[in-house]
Amino acid sequence: MDFSYSAKTADYLQRLDTFMREFIEPYESQYQKENFRLNGTPNWREWQVPPRVAELKQMARERGLWNLFLPDDKLGAGLSTLEYAPLAERMGRSLLAPEIFNCNAPDTGNMEVLYHFGDKSQQRRWLQPLLDGETRSVFCMTEPDVASSDATNMQTTIVADGDEWVINGRKWWSTGLGHPQAEIAIVMGLTDEDADKHQRHTMILVPLDTPGVNIERMLPALGEYDAPYGHGEVIFDHVRVPKENIIVGPGAGFKIAQGRLGPGRIHHCMRAIGAAERALELFIERGATRIAFGQPLLKLGGNTERLADMRVAIDQARLMTLYAAWQIDNIGALKAIKEISAIKLVAPNVLQQVVDETMQLFGGASMCHDTPLPGLLAVAKSLRIADGPDAVHRATIAKTELKQWQGRRHD
Amino acid sequence: MDFSYSAKTADYLQRLDTFMREFIEPYESQYQKENFRLNGTPNWREWQVPPRVAELKQMARERGLWNLFLPDDKLGAGLSTLEYAPLAERMGRSLLAPEIFNCNAPDTGNMEVLYHFGDKSQQRRWLQPLLDGETRSVFCMTEPDVASSDATNMQTTIVADGDEWVINGRKWWSTGLGHPQAEIAIVMGLTDEDADKHQRHTMILVPLDTPGVNIERMLPALGEYDAPYGHGEVIFDHVRVPKENIIVGPGAGFKIAQGRLGPGRIHHCMRAIGAAERALELFIERGATRIAFGQPLLKLGGNTERLADMRVAIDQARLMTLYAAWQIDNIGALKAIKEISAIKLVAPNVLQQVVDETMQLFGGASMCHDTPLPGLLAVAKSLRIADGPDAVHRATIAKTELKQWQGRRHD
Amino acid sequence: MDFSYSAKTADYLQRLDTFMREFIEPYESQYQKENFRLNGTPNWREWQVPPRVAELKQMARERGLWNLFLPDDKLGAGLSTLEYAPLAERMGRSLLAPEIFNCNAPDTGNMEVLYHFGDKSQQRRWLQPLLDGETRSVFCMTEPDVASSDATNMQTTIVADGDEWVINGRKWWSTGLGHPQAEIAIVMGLTDEDADKHQRHTMILVPLDTPGVNIERMLPALGEYDAPYGHGEVIFDHVRVPKENIIVGPGAGFKIAQGRLGPGRIHHCMRAIGAAERALELFIERGATRIAFGQPLLKLGGNTERLADMRVAIDQARLMTLYAAWQIDNIGALKAIKEISAIKLVAPNVLQQVVDETMQLFGGASMCHDTPLPGLLAVAKSLRIADGPDAVHRATIAKTELKQWQGRRHD
Amino acid sequence: MDFSYSAKTADYLQRLDTFMREFIEPYESQYQKENFRLNGTPNWREWQVPPRVAELKQMARERGLWNLFLPDDKLGAGLSTLEYAPLAERMGRSLLAPEIFNCNAPDTGNMEVLYHFGDKSQQRRWLQPLLDGETRSVFCMTEPDVASSDATNMQTTIVADGDEWVINGRKWWSTGLGHPQAEIAIVMGLTDEDADKHQRHTMILVPLDTPGVNIERMLPALGEYDAPYGHGEVIFDHVRVPKENIIVGPGAGFKIAQGRLGPGRIHHCMRAIGAAERALELFIERGATRIAFGQPLLKLGGNTERLADMRVAIDQARLMTLYAAWQIDNIGALKAIKEISAIKLVAPNVLQQVVDETMQLFGGASMCHDTPLPGLLAVAKSLRIADGPDAVHRATIAKTELKQWQGRRHD
Repeated sequence: MDFSYSAKTADYLQRLDTFMREFIEPYESQYQKENFRLNGTPNWREWQVPPRVAELKQMARERGLWNLFLPDDKLGAGLSTLEYAPLAERMGRSLLAPEIFNCNAPDTGNMEVLYHFGDKSQQRRWLQPLLDGETRSVFCMTEPDVASSDATNMQTTIVADGDEWVINGRKWWSTGLGHPQAEIAIVMGLTDEDADKHQRHTMILVPLDTPGVNIERMLPALGEYDAPYGHGEVIFDHVRVPKENIIVGPGAGFKIAQGRLGPGRIHHCMRAIGAAERALELFIERGATRIAFGQPLLKLGGNTERLADMRVAIDQARLMTLYAAWQIDNIGALKAIKEISAIKLVAPNVLQQVVDETMQLFGGASMCHDTPLPGLLAVAKSLRIADGPDAVHRATIAKTELKQWQGRRHD
Repeated sequence: MDFSYSAKTADYLQRLDTFMREFIEPYESQYQKENFRLNGTPNWREWQVPPRVAELKQMARERGLWNLFLPDDKLGAGLSTLEYAPLAERMGRSLLAPEIFNCNAPDTGNMEVLYHFGDKSQQRRWLQPLLDGETRSVFCMTEPDVASSDATNMQTTIVADGDEWVINGRKWWSTGLGHPQAEIAIVMGLTDEDADKHQRHTMILVPLDTPGVNIERMLPALGEYDAPYGHGEVIFDHVRVPKENIIVGPGAGFKIAQGRLGPGRIHHCMRAIGAAERALELFIERGATRIAFGQPLLKLGGNTERLADMRVAIDQARLMTLYAAWQIDNIGALKAIKEISAIKLVAPNVLQQVVDETMQLFGGASMCHDTPLPGLLAVAKSLRIADGPDAVHRATIAKTELKQWQGRRHD
Repeated sequence: MDFSYSAKTADYLQRLDTFMREFIEPYESQYQKENFRLNGTPNWREWQVPPRVAELKQMARERGLWNLFLPDDKLGAGLSTLEYAPLAERMGRSLLAPEIFNCNAPDTGNMEVLYHFGDKSQQRRWLQPLLDGETRSVFCMTEPDVASSDATNMQTTIVADGDEWVINGRKWWSTGLGHPQAEIAIVMGLTDEDADKHQRHTMILVPLDTPGVNIERMLPALGEYDAPYGHGEVIFDHVRVPKENIIVGPGAGFKIAQGRLGPGRIHHCMRAIGAAERALELFIERGATRIAFGQPLLKLGGNTERLADMRVAIDQARLMTLYAAWQIDNIGALKAIKEISAIKLVAPNVLQQVVDETMQLFGGASMCHDTPLPGLLAVAKSLRIADGPDAVHRATIAKTELKQWQGRRHD
Repeated sequence: MDFSYSAKTADYLQRLDTFMREFIEPYESQYQKENFRLNGTPNWREWQVPPRVAELKQMARERGLWNLFLPDDKLGAGLSTLEYAPLAERMGRSLLAPEIFNCNAPDTGNMEVLYHFGDKSQQRRWLQPLLDGETRSVFCMTEPDVASSDATNMQTTIVADGDEWVINGRKWWSTGLGHPQAEIAIVMGLTDEDADKHQRHTMILVPLDTPGVNIERMLPALGEYDAPYGHGEVIFDHVRVPKENIIVGPGAGFKIAQGRLGPGRIHHCMRAIGAAERALELFIERGATRIAFGQPLLKLGGNTERLADMRVAIDQARLMTLYAAWQIDNIGALKAIKEISAIKLVAPNVLQQVVDETMQLFGGASMCHDTPLPGLLAVAKSLRIADGPDAVHRATIAKTELKQWQGRRHD
């Protein structure tokens, strides 16, 4: 048992830290303003990427801080899930940083799908430009009309017709759909209603300029459009794509999703922990410097106890997430399902709690964009819903625990 | 001891309920869209009131459902704080309703100030049009640069100069400042730094078209601009108003604030409870009708227990608020300070909790404006900060409790 | 709506308060020691009532502070449930007081059963000596072998045989079974397995000296035997009682239980609230006088915030309980089931929370009998289990709420 | 980073597990009864050790499962703090087990003090018989009259007088003081009131048969005497011991305490986690097998969600404790103070929560000794108070966090 980070992780962590301090953090408040100036409208067709973003991406790439999430020696940095996790935490301290290092959701997950499951031609056509950071991608899974926490509810259909697949359905909360560089969506839908529960669904590649892809609107998450990415609602109206756009084959959707979700949840949770650390720093800074009733806020009421509780909650969430990452690397995501659900439950709640308390210290300033807090609250709350709400993960944990107890009992 | 509502309250409650069901609720989703169409921009100078609002106000007035908050037989309905409280709860079920009945914050509080403390001339000039629902008003208290939870921090100055007062300072979160009909602000500032702590501050009437009143921007609260009201940031730059604009006199600010806050907090809390009831209904409706894993959501996991806990929390908060209202009517707001702080602590937290859980059941739909939930979350979180954050009210409760214990001890 | 206590309640409250301050509180720590000396053994057959207790009972009776719980003008004080509630709270501040006023569980509940449902002969034989405080009684309901939270699980049988009923079964947590003056038990059992769910059970009077009543042991609740009452485990082994010992008749058990539980829960909850008030006073007293790190404990960490939260929790629980009492008086216990379940859930949890926090301030002293805290913890935890654990009451609340929602929906 | 246990730990864990399954678990309920028969009286002078205990200790010793806590190759097993931690967890599943392996508090802590700080003669005289499991020892620190959470409050004095030290004072909650084999106490007291805050106190060895050592009583912790150990209250009345009984020297008390507390807290917390695991198993077992309303309890209400939350809480507490152990081994207890306080805060609270919920499922059975639950509750609550209550550890965490933040800020 050893809690120290690997030499490789430690090295990348330091370089990442340096880059973030020198280039990203000083730019953040300007980015906020620029983004508001360029993209402060619900009219997503006008959205643009602030030019400085492309420059920073180029700089990060030149320094080898690029695609660190990808467990491939050549395309990424060859880091294991556990080795990458602390880097995701570091990036999570900034809402801008993940993109600069080409490590932002949903592109990371989509790249992983194409890397692990795409064929050569799909990889050449769609993966390479994503790895180069030149295009952006979308994952279309959640639907408005059914409880998507139960994926078997999914209603979008993918039907074979000659040399093509025809897609019909409505998806929403498809992140990245508003991005000016978004080119491709991975769409999940029903190919065979009568197949076994986990072989009914299929993933298919749909270029966004295909006729019948009708983007209806971008959805604000607690008022945040997250421009220039956006979370879109889209109708697939008799959308036709060639046969070869299918990933793996009909019925492979669930298997791919499973593979996609394991490391993806580690990334989400570690970024959430990084965000919580940042919120905690804001809590301390505000608490130590703002004066009321003749004292710094930290000396009033239960604020020091809050600080202690939040510190302990964050540290526990981090250890739990690193442990889940270690399990993914060692026994695979499927066998680590209890631990993965555990962190998906814990980390976003810790973030929400820390942000909520920090907002209390900031008062009015916490409610508007003068602080990153409303954005962080939207992240926390979104994470508690996306990829299964808290309750679904509690159910998974309990089910697995019960099964393990029954196993022990019959030993 | 008797928990039944007075005949007067019961009668108004029924008429209010009828009006809301017949006219307001059916209009709500259209209002939402119309408001977004007219006012879905941060550029507040373009904001307009949807015409249907004026019609509804007229209809409410004709039916005697007007200014119910005002404890005056002629100008209002002569209801005590306790009698009005259940009506405020009913209105609180809708974000639109309070305005229709001319019972919305901050106008109610401002009207109370003018009613209780304004002189005849101030009442004629400013109160009457507010009572008629023809103008809107603003209360400027919170400042960005100091912890406004400790009101003695306030930095805006009001200095006598000849026949005028000169006001300098910066205020924010001044609700209503973006409203096209906003005409008047009650501004609180420092008149005598050396006076006793509670006699340093003064309230003064500042017409919004006075030179030097520079509105800088509207602030979104968790992304909600609350158009066409808005929460503004404003600079008072050598703003000059005539001597007679002062309310009561120099140094009376705290005394007036105290009087304003008592009933105002009852209103806020009862509306929060009404909002919590509405969110709970959404929770039940969604839980009873949405299917996942072959069951309505309510049958899954701990959802029935959540329902029970929320029901109990809301009922307790309501009783506590009604009790505080009864105390205000019987012993006055000053002596009821512990109970008033208690409800200010409890009610918004209950609302936040209910909204948070309801959002979990709604999933993605909860994050955007397809449901009233993001708006209700912003209300809850704002209420936990405005008029003193939770921590300040906990401190007040503890201080009062300790004082009472010491009193009993020395009996 | 009126939150002031009735004149009758106010008068009794003052007399009760005087009696408790003058006679009970000064005796309490001596009682604790005397009780430990006389009864500090699990061997319940040796238990005795400290002689001072009988004296105090006599004094209370002479002052008319006797059987206040009974809603009968002659036998009690003719107080409604709501009017008695504040007196129960006052008594609840002392673990000894309820007995002194002949208002202790389970005798109150048993007297209510006999008063409302007993026939003349049963009342003469069993009720009168209880009203006189000369005998004690037991209620035998919970069974060790089945989940008694679901009363239909009950396995004890009551079978007719000639002019007698024959009882067989095992009961436990039968409070009062160890008392030297215990004479009579009301036993609930199964008379007709095939009847409708709520007509299977029957209540019957069993004198404790009947052959076949085999008391096995007294059970400590978190180490507390509650001598000289005790909580017993008892076997009914072919116990024969005459036909006339049945209450109302076969199958009436549930109906009687329902009537018994409504006011009984008000009493339990109000006593719990009184106990919580006492614990809160201990919290404040300890916090204000004990010094650590150069400060009274109350000035350290979050202790003032804890104080505030506990004050608010207690006040809300009290109002909720008074409201439930008012409903019992006005619409009956059956229709007030949601509110009764609500207080059964809330009040013991509030007590447990206040006791838990107070123990933290008392440190080591809190764990042993140098403070009343371990006794109060046992009360709280017992109340969270007896008469249905928290989860059962949450289920009742949710079920009722859902039914009411469906009713409103179909209006 | 590696989360797998060392080969050494894995080997011991398996052997320990086998021993516990084969010899300790089957004996536990008999032990409970035997202990009640022999020691079910507050009269501690009659207490005896059940003979089977000595046999089991001998068997454990023969199998090399002895003194595993001691980081010494010869006297113990040469395990690091981190390597021993999982063994402590395993032992913690039983209230009896730690003693069988000579790994029970307070003897472990006392042996560590003598091992690290005792001189040769002290080790020969007092350490050896403890290592052999033939005597038992006591640690006298907490005092009834002052807040012992602030150790500088301590009032017991140790004064030099010729060739002797004279001890005067009152201690309580001295665990093991009732044990028939208890021979020696390590007493902490004040030697120099005017010295620097951390050099005022001294530890000294006091044989329990020294004149003036007056044991007044054993204290029940929530009704548990923990016989035959007991928690004693003792007066030191002009107790005289020879000069050489001092440990290290005058003023070294704090330094020794610091060294004693680091690993000791790991042990306590890991045992608490083991106890929580056992309680969780009881929760699952009861939940899966007990029927109410036609269903196993686990299927009712929020019980599966509770199960999930408890699983996640335990796993996080374990990882946090192992991390703190790793820090103690790598940077020393002093530098790991924040993490040590964190686990002291977290682990006992997790245990209390799990036990509380499990009690709810067990109903009446949970309140008496038919289950281990009251004992586990007393352990949890005691641990939240002993060695500093929760609030003290929150203060330590916040203080350290703030200091670290200031350090980073001035980089």
